[in-house]
Amino acid sequence: MERIGVIDTMFARYDMGTEALDELTSCPGYGERFDTLHQTVPGFKDLAVAAKAMIEREGCRIVVVLGMPGKAEVDKVCAHEASQGIMWAQLLTTTPILEVFVHEDESDDPEVLAAVCVDRARKHARNAYWMLYEPDQLTRRAGQGVRQGFADAGPLPRRS
Amino acid sequence: MERIGVIDTMFARYDMGTEALDELTSCPGYGERFDTLHQTVPGFKDLAVAAKAMIEREGCRIVVVLGMPGKAEVDKVCAHEASQGIMWAQLLTTTPILEVFVHEDESDDPEVLAAVCVDRARKHARNAYWMLYEPDQLTRRAGQGVRQGFADAGPLPRRS
Amino acid sequence: MERIGVIDTMFARYDMGTEALDELTSCPGYGERFDTLHQTVPGFKDLAVAAKAMIEREGCRIVVVLGMPGKAEVDKVCAHEASQGIMWAQLLTTTPILEVFVHEDESDDPEVLAAVCVDRARKHARNAYWMLYEPDQLTRRAGQGVRQGFADAGPLPRRS
Amino acid sequence: MERIGVIDTMFARYDMGTEALDELTSCPGYGERFDTLHQTVPGFKDLAVAAKAMIEREGCRIVVVLGMPGKAEVDKVCAHEASQGIMWAQLLTTTPILEVFVHEDESDDPEVLAAVCVDRARKHARNAYWMLYEPDQLTRRAGQGVRQGFADAGPLPRRS
Amino acid sequence: MERIGVIDTMFARYDMGTEALDELTSCPGYGERFDTLHQTVPGFKDLAVAAKAMIEREGCRIVVVLGMPGKAEVDKVCAHEASQGIMWAQLLTTTPILEVFVHEDESDDPEVLAAVCVDRARKHARNAYWMLYEPDQLTRRAGQGVRQGFADAGPLPRRS
Repeated sequence: MERIGVIDTMFARYDMGTEALDELTSCPGYGERFDTLHQTVPGFKDLAVAAKAMIEREGCRIVVVLGMPGKAEVDKVCAHEASQGIMWAQLLTTTPILEVFVHEDESDDPEVLAAVCVDRARKHARNAYWMLYEPDQLTRRAGQGVRQGFADAGPLPRRS
Repeated sequence: MERIGVIDTMFARYDMGTEALDELTSCPGYGERFDTLHQTVPGFKDLAVAAKAMIEREGCRIVVVLGMPGKAEVDKVCAHEASQGIMWAQLLTTTPILEVFVHEDESDDPEVLAAVCVDRARKHARNAYWMLYEPDQLTRRAGQGVRQGFADAGPLPRRS
Repeated sequence: MERIGVIDTMFARYDMGTEALDELTSCPGYGERFDTLHQTVPGFKDLAVAAKAMIEREGCRIVVVLGMPGKAEVDKVCAHEASQGIMWAQLLTTTPILEVFVHEDESDDPEVLAAVCVDRARKHARNAYWMLYEPDQLTRRAGQGVRQGFADAGPLPRRS
Repeated sequence: MERIGVIDTMFARYDMGTEALDELTSCPGYGERFDTLHQTVPGFKDLAVAAKAMIEREGCRIVVVLGMPGKAEVDKVCAHEASQGIMWAQLLTTTPILEVFVHEDESDDPEVLAAVCVDRARKHARNAYWMLYEPDQLTRRAGQGVRQGFADAGPLPRRS
Repeated sequence: MERIGVIDTMFARYDMGTEALDELTSCPGYGERFDTLHQTVPGFKDLAVAAKAMIEREGCRIVVVLGMPGKAEVDKVCAHEASQGIMWAQLLTTTPILEVFVHEDESDDPEVLAAVCVDRARKHARNAYWMLYEPDQLTRRAGQGVRQGFADAGPLPRRS
């Protein structure tokens, strides 16, 4: 059975990992074609190496990593470092790692922020499933301005 | 037959991949000397590892990757991370990956933005073809201030 | 016996290494299941390669690195470079390195800053222990807005 | 015969490659001890992988890469990405690649900018020659505030 | 006999390499236990690959690299790229490379700047020696707020 990894953090303010895992459970083939693996690390800067280990040592075909960078300037620099690490981890393993970051300053309303967490975690978990098993779902949405967390931006006017 | 890869995204707001593929179809030797391979990933941060996989597993000689970063500050940081990933993917494979990014803030006019998408996607696809099969087309344009998406900047006055 | 590494610097203004080592000494299994290794380098930009050497040559399973970036703009750039290095060191060794940085501008009060140093060094040392021997401690705190150095941020309201 | 590579771009607004090649032609041993290899790529972000390929596949001992970043903010980010790529290409090949970038905003006067292009391209080509065959030329200028493109800055007062 | 490398630049405005070499000459064991190797490169962006080559091809156990970034914004970006390169060179070789950069804007007074060059070059050369042969010198200064170039910052108040 193939494996999809999910890694979340202790520092995030919403349990996005549970949302991602639940979404994957509802995808076709769960428990037959693929299974999930879950780990929690302290903060989002610990995600990259954990994902690399999950791929290399646990055989995950794809990993969804979830974190929530804070509002301060230093948090933004840390998030950039974390993202670079996730990028390298992908390139060193030639395996996709879907980064699901919800920035605390995306909304001042805790309810809205929580809703973004849920939507983005679930949509990216679904993307991970599509990338492995239904790539045509992505192809037919090419250039359509799809968004995760908020409403879709939609496509530009088509040049004739 | 050799292969040129084209990867676009679901988040972009114009179907640039189709433009690039169409341009390649019109190049000499299409279907005989070279063929194309197409894939769609969720967003532009997923392009780098997908391009690396296309080169290493599908034998692409060159890949054109297309994306559309948004206007927000966080989008610019993400675009930078994506570009760094594309740079590393090239260096790890010693294979060119042509990055075609149209930034949403290049124009406020959706019609102009769409025109930039078409022009830049096609010109870079043509560059990919030239790099593989007609490198002299590039050499004779060296230092000429060529641009993609907008009008050429042109050369500076020549020192005698 | 397994090893946990601790590396601190001469440039930092608080002896955080001693705090981390003391915390590890108080963890279950110290001296039986695992031991510690300690090194001091000049500044925080020397931490990454030292951690890599500790992992590759001394067999450390995890390393805690501690530094204190100054207030000037150039210090922030250096801290970013140091953090990137620590990220690469993790990816090149597939081994976690926990970065414990206390920024001098986190507080103007030397007493508060010293307290942050102690708390963050000890909490991250404990995290290192958890990652190796009690990963469930992390999992049960997933998405809880835990913080090190200051009070916890706590979780967002739960979506029903 | 050893080889020195020269790579320029189609997007640059001055034919700096020809200047660099001409300078190398005038160096002692040209055509006997060393020869040159020339390539043109679309833009400066394509230089890094092209230089790596020239070193690994064509056996170049050193490569001079020339580009001209534009004035916009996005151009500066791209130039940074290109420079990082050139840095990695050097480290992955353990071979020097001399980056010759003339930024369009170094002067508002096209004549001055053209003069900077010529001077910097030639001086760096000469440096490439020195690095391979006359390293003492560099040693005797250590700490002298030498500049390329504009007048030398000169040394600080000597501490007795 | 072991080797310590020293690399300086032609673009720097003070001959820091000579200071570093002189300091190493005065360390215990010079000429018996260890020797020095010296090279000059054009600018600070050429230091990283030169240091990597010194380690891999000349067997240096540690390298001290010295440069002087200018005041302009573009110089700061270049210094960042150079520092990242030095970081990667360390990680790819698992060997320390001590970066000694004096920024031209650290003082407007040329005499002060020259004094910083001398002090920082010598202190870092001494650090290189300590790292190899007297690591206890570093350990006993852990967390003491030591500085190079200017006066020490000193430690924060100790938490009881």
